[in-house]
Formats: sequence, C-alpha cells, structure tokens
Amino acid sequence: MGSLAPTPTPAALDASTINFTPSTTLRPVPEIGSPEEKSHSYCTDHMLTVRWTVETGWQTPEIRPFENLSIPPTASCLHYATECFEGMKAYRGYDGKLRLFRPDCNGERLANSAVRTSLPGFGAGEVKKLVGRLLQIDGPRWLPKDKPGRFLYIRPTVIGNGTQLGVQAPKEALLFIIAVPWPDMSSNPSGLKLLASSPDTIRAWPGGFGYAKLGANYGPSLAAHGLATGQGFDQVLWLFGEERQVTEAGASNFFIVWENKQGRRELVTASLENQLILPGVTRRSVLELARERLASASATGLAPVDVVERPFTIAEVEEAWKEGRIVEAFVSGTAYFIAPVQIIRNGDVDMNMLEAGVERAGYAAQIKAWLGAIMYGKEEHEWGYVIENEDGR
Amino acid sequence: MGSLAPTPTPAALDASTINFTPSTTLRPVPEIGSPEEKSHSYCTDHMLTVRWTVETGWQTPEIRPFENLSIPPTASCLHYATECFEGMKAYRGYDGKLRLFRPDCNGERLANSAVRTSLPGFGAGEVKKLVGRLLQIDGPRWLPKDKPGRFLYIRPTVIGNGTQLGVQAPKEALLFIIAVPWPDMSSNPSGLKLLASSPDTIRAWPGGFGYAKLGANYGPSLAAHGLATGQGFDQVLWLFGEERQVTEAGASNFFIVWENKQGRRELVTASLENQLILPGVTRRSVLELARERLASASATGLAPVDVVERPFTIAEVEEAWKEGRIVEAFVSGTAYFIAPVQIIRNGDVDMNMLEAGVERAGYAAQIKAWLGAIMYGKEEHEWGYVIENEDGR
Repeated sequence: MGSLAPTPTPAALDASTINFTPSTTLRPVPEIGSPEEKSHSYCTDHMLTVRWTVETGWQTPEIRPFENLSIPPTASCLHYATECFEGMKAYRGYDGKLRLFRPDCNGERLANSAVRTSLPGFGAGEVKKLVGRLLQIDGPRWLPKDKPGRFLYIRPTVIGNGTQLGVQAPKEALLFIIAVPWPDMSSNPSGLKLLASSPDTIRAWPGGFGYAKLGANYGPSLAAHGLATGQGFDQVLWLFGEERQVTEAGASNFFIVWENKQGRRELVTASLENQLILPGVTRRSVLELARERLASASATGLAPVDVVERPFTIAEVEEAWKEGRIVEAFVSGTAYFIAPVQIIRNGDVDMNMLEAGVERAGYAAQIKAWLGAIMYGKEEHEWGYVIENEDGR
Repeated sequence: MGSLAPTPTPAALDASTINFTPSTTLRPVPEIGSPEEKSHSYCTDHMLTVRWTVETGWQTPEIRPFENLSIPPTASCLHYATECFEGMKAYRGYDGKLRLFRPDCNGERLANSAVRTSLPGFGAGEVKKLVGRLLQIDGPRWLPKDKPGRFLYIRPTVIGNGTQLGVQAPKEALLFIIAVPWPDMSSNPSGLKLLASSPDTIRAWPGGFGYAKLGANYGPSLAAHGLATGQGFDQVLWLFGEERQVTEAGASNFFIVWENKQGRRELVTASLENQLILPGVTRRSVLELARERLASASATGLAPVDVVERPFTIAEVEEAWKEGRIVEAFVSGTAYFIAPVQIIRNGDVDMNMLEAGVERAGYAAQIKAWLGAIMYGKEEHEWGYVIENEDGR
C-alpha cells in the first residue's frame, strides 16, 4: 500500500477487504405487489463492484450508492456478449436471521460461466462473502427482521467493460452485485402453461454453452418466449434434437413425476450430459432431497419415487399422459422456485398435468415446503448460509 | 413538436432530421500503425445515438461528442445479450470522394439481427443515412481528401438499455454508431493460419442464430479463438456436425478454389441453408463478381471457375489437398476484407494452401482488386454509395 511498484502477478478476487461509501439518500422500500416490485428493476440503496484488468487482476471490492454504470461505446460486453450472471435470493427467516441458499453453488457456476465466455475466473467462495457484505448493509432495511418470509433477488454479474472492438478475450472486466425486490412467482395457483418449442428454434446444442449462465443463452430465446406468452403461455418448454428431448422450461429446470411402464413411480428430469441444460442449484437440491427423503415410504404419506436423471422425449410424456400415468409436473429455479405445471402444449396436443390419470400426489408441494423450511430457517440445514453482523457497518 | 399529446403509434426510425451537438475539443487523428489505431477502440470525435422505447418508438437521432454511455446495472444488454451490430467501412476514394460499400446490405442485416434478439426493427435504408451524416461531420478530418486509400471502421450497434431484469423482450433500446481508425488486416503477406475447430466446440447450430450478427455469437467463441491464437493461428476454422462441414473462419466467410474430381475449377463456399453462417456482404459480393467476371475466359487471364455454394466438409478439403487439386483458399469479411489462407490445421494434418499442387492462380487477389476499385472510386459501380456534402454541417 502506497508503493508504486507494479504488482508482480494479477491479484485474486479477495472479499476480505471491501471499501464502503454509504448512500446519503435512501430509497423507499417498495410494498409487496407494488409497481416498483413488479418492475424487476428497482434496486436497493447500494451496489457492489469489483474491477479487474488483465495486468492487475481483481481490485479491491467497493460497495457504493446504486447508480448507472459508465460504459464505453466500444465495450466488449455491448458487442460480443462477454457477460454472465447468477440468480440468487436472500431470505429473511422466521428466526429473524438473513440467509442465502447454497451460495457456493452459485459462486462456482458464476466462475464457470465467466471462463466459458473468456471473462476472468475467481475463487467461488468469495461470491457469498461479497453478497453477504452487501446484505449486511442493505438487508436490515430492505428485509426487515419483523417481516419474516420475504426475500430479495440477488444478481451477481460479470461483464467485459473494457474499450475493445477487436474480437478477443476481454482485458478489463467488472463484477457487480445488485439486489432487487422481486415478485413471488411460485404461487401461481393454477400452475404454469408451457408451450413446447418447434424444431426451428433451438436453445442450445452439444458443444455450445447451454450449461453456462451466459447472456448469450437469453437474448436469442426471447423471440420464442414472446411468441409463447403472446399465446397465453408462461414459458417455452425447450425440446432438442430429432427425437425431441425435453430439456428445460424457460429459464427453469423441468421435472415430471409419472408411473413408468413397469408401474414404478419416478421423478424424472433431463440429465446434464451434452451440457445442454443449466445445472440449476434448485434442480440439484430437488434431486438430493428426493433421493434422501422420497426414495422409500416416509412420514410424508407420499408413495416412494425413483429419482431418474436421463434424456427423455416429449413423445414419452405424451404417451404417459395418454395412458393416465402422469402424477405431476413442475419447474424449479431461483426465479420460479418450485412451481407446478398445468398445461403442456406440443403441436396440437394440450396435455393437462393437473387432471392426469393418477391422483395428484403433491411431490412438488412437499419439496417446496422442505426447501422453504431451509431457506427461512425453520429447519437448520447446511444449505442455509446465515449472514451474520447485519448493521455491522 | 411542442405538443404534449401522446404519440398514437410508435415512430419509425427516421434519418431525415438529426440533431447535432458539436464537440468542442477535437481529438488528434492517429497515424497509421500507431498504438491508438491498433487499439481498435480510439473513436472519432462524434457518435450517433437514437433512443427507442416501446411506447414512443424511435426518437430523433442525435450526433454528439463521443463519450461513455450511462447504462443501468439492470439493463437488458448487460444480462441477456440483447445486442447486435454491423461492421462497415468508409473509404476515402482516389477521386476524393467518401464512400460506403453496399450499406443497404448492412442496414438490412442489422434490422434482421435486431429482430432475432427481440430488439426493435427499422427501415434498413435509414442506416446508410445515419452513417452518412456522421461521416459528413467526422469524415473530412479523419479521412482527409489528400490521403486517398484510407478507411474508417464503422460500428452500428443496437442494445437493449432499459432497466429490466425480468426475462422478456426489451422495452427500451439504443442504436448507436461509432467510427474507429482500424488497421489494414488484409495485407498479411504470408497468409492466414487457420485451426479447424474440435468437435467439442461449435459456433452455431440449426435453429440457432449463427446467421445473425448477435453479440451472442462472439463471446462464447472467444475461448476457442484464444486457444488458436495461443498456438500461433490467426482464426478458428469452424466445423459443424458429425460430417465436419466447413462453415466460417473466425468472423469471416471462407472460400476455397480447387479442381473438382472431374477436373473442373470451382470457387466453393458454404451455403446459407440451415442459417448456420453469417451472410457476409463481402461474401455475397465475391460470389456475384465471380459469377459475372470469372465464369468464362476473360481478360484477367484466369481460368474460368464454376461458383458453387454448398455444404462441404473438411475431409473434402483434405482429399483435394492430398491429390494436389487445391488452387487457393481465402477469407472474406469487413475486418479482413479479402485475405489469403496459408495453413489449415485439422487435427494433426497441416495443409499448406499456398504450396498446393496447382499453380497459384490469384483469384483472391483479382477479386480484392475489383472490390477495392469499387470501394475507392476507381470504378464507378452501384455498390459504391457516395457521401455527399462533407463539411455540410
């Protein structure tokens, strides 16, 4: 410090020192259901930023008043989509504590995504510390302790913000973290309506980047999403390949519970092979909880299920639906959490997942309850990461 | 004007009125070969911007001093890659005139790209007028009339810059145009070295967006590009599919001249079917000139060639190379213009395109000369779009 000697090796991302410039004008916290909340863009009072250059590495993180970014018109992120992000939530528990859910999974995926689009990597464990520091500051006011059960959406993002029109890996980058009040999208009582994609629009491909949370996976998919919502659907159910494999639903992972042809009850989701689909943190947690708590007869009263990760096709779904073997379908993700699926339209076939042949069994509701208990501190669990020292500015 | 009544329908992009705020501090114009030129990011004195919102449509274009953009951290373009661009050049002719090359082709492709990533469309013909107005202002100083044969690189870009973390089509956008001194990358005397991509990395896929000039095509390809340049290659030769089709070279189109098995000389490039490759303006011009001027014996002294657009594989290239049937290979694009290919490495096979069996015939050099004559006003041609009224502020 104070020395002008050049740094010999680029510095690693280090959350142990974070500079803080408090905002002098605090924003009103929006009410649940308010237009500000529904805007998905009304952020808390502060943001966290960390600059990186290829020469210096990661610089000291800063928390400062939320404001627009000053970005050169030649910046890599505006032309070459050198950008990736994570979706996380911070939960105000019924014990008054503030928690993240498996934040190291998000940190690891963000680092993997960054490398996939030639942005700098970092130690995955630093992300939860950075998010935690931001929430020590903005958590108490934006998620008051006397209002448990609420959450904030957290968006860590990495962009290539250097001046660089030449097509090459970014030489400058910015990691920033913002926190946003977000509507609860898991409580659609009637369930989601999914429109299966047509063969002329494909979200991802083997050898591509469907497994990484890159901006490049989203912009090109908005047109199909817009066509689906224009027809009254909530999300696209993305199919892949000539065999029409079921991959993801919008930006969520897709699960189906059915009885297989041998009469065994299965919880099925697409496998991660081929790197086609996003390895969701909620997806992984659903699978782990189901294997642990639903594989054999239990206190839940739910019939045991086999947990199956494998490629499966929309034709298999349709066959099971026609034969009355569907139990339920749901999606998982940070934005939608666990949300039941009502309708899947594939071509001219509308499959109602709620009025399927087998009585509705409530697996999604049970898994959602288990996850919620961990997130909101009703169950002590290693997946809940408590943010200590709130107000400890 | 002056009315507060709401606009009934969103306005179309209209280049007939452009507001102009001159810069008060003009920047030094960099020398050829200077670090500023090689930075690919040292822009001219002014930039053009046009705002769009879903309610108002396109607003009045503005030309103003070059400066950073103020972008919300929640902007769609930073998270969802809602961004697309064009590469064009402005040429200072030997007749003193300033020209664009087929700018309506770029305008049309930019509009197509915008729609592919759910950004607003516009009349393709407006783009050349916007670029023209910017060059009326910055052309005289940055491309002096007494220094013919120089060019500026022009980068029209559209980004979704509204505050919008929800995954949906942008409700606000910005079209901006910047102009940048750019090194001449077509004069590598030894020719380009291309590394054929491995099966685990593909650039584009059927049903995807390889045909659109989206940022999403670039960021995810930088890793493979970096691996190639780290091994001394200039570009990746992108192969696709189990049959290893040859598609593009880096961000350029790829051409090969060979004698086919029946002994006929062919100019071959990948076809546009499947929407895998970018429909290059230079590619199209190469094909049109070749069909017009190289299909039969001519004053050039070059043997006639059949012009062939079809899917072809790296195995076909390798077979032709082994059998001594290669005449030459080259790439085309705005950045590289027409540049010969020296080496193609596919796996452990290095194919030298300059020392192939057939004597080198100079098709690329001839086509480059024809195109250059049009760009720099040595040949009057409808593809050259003259920018009138320079200094007509």
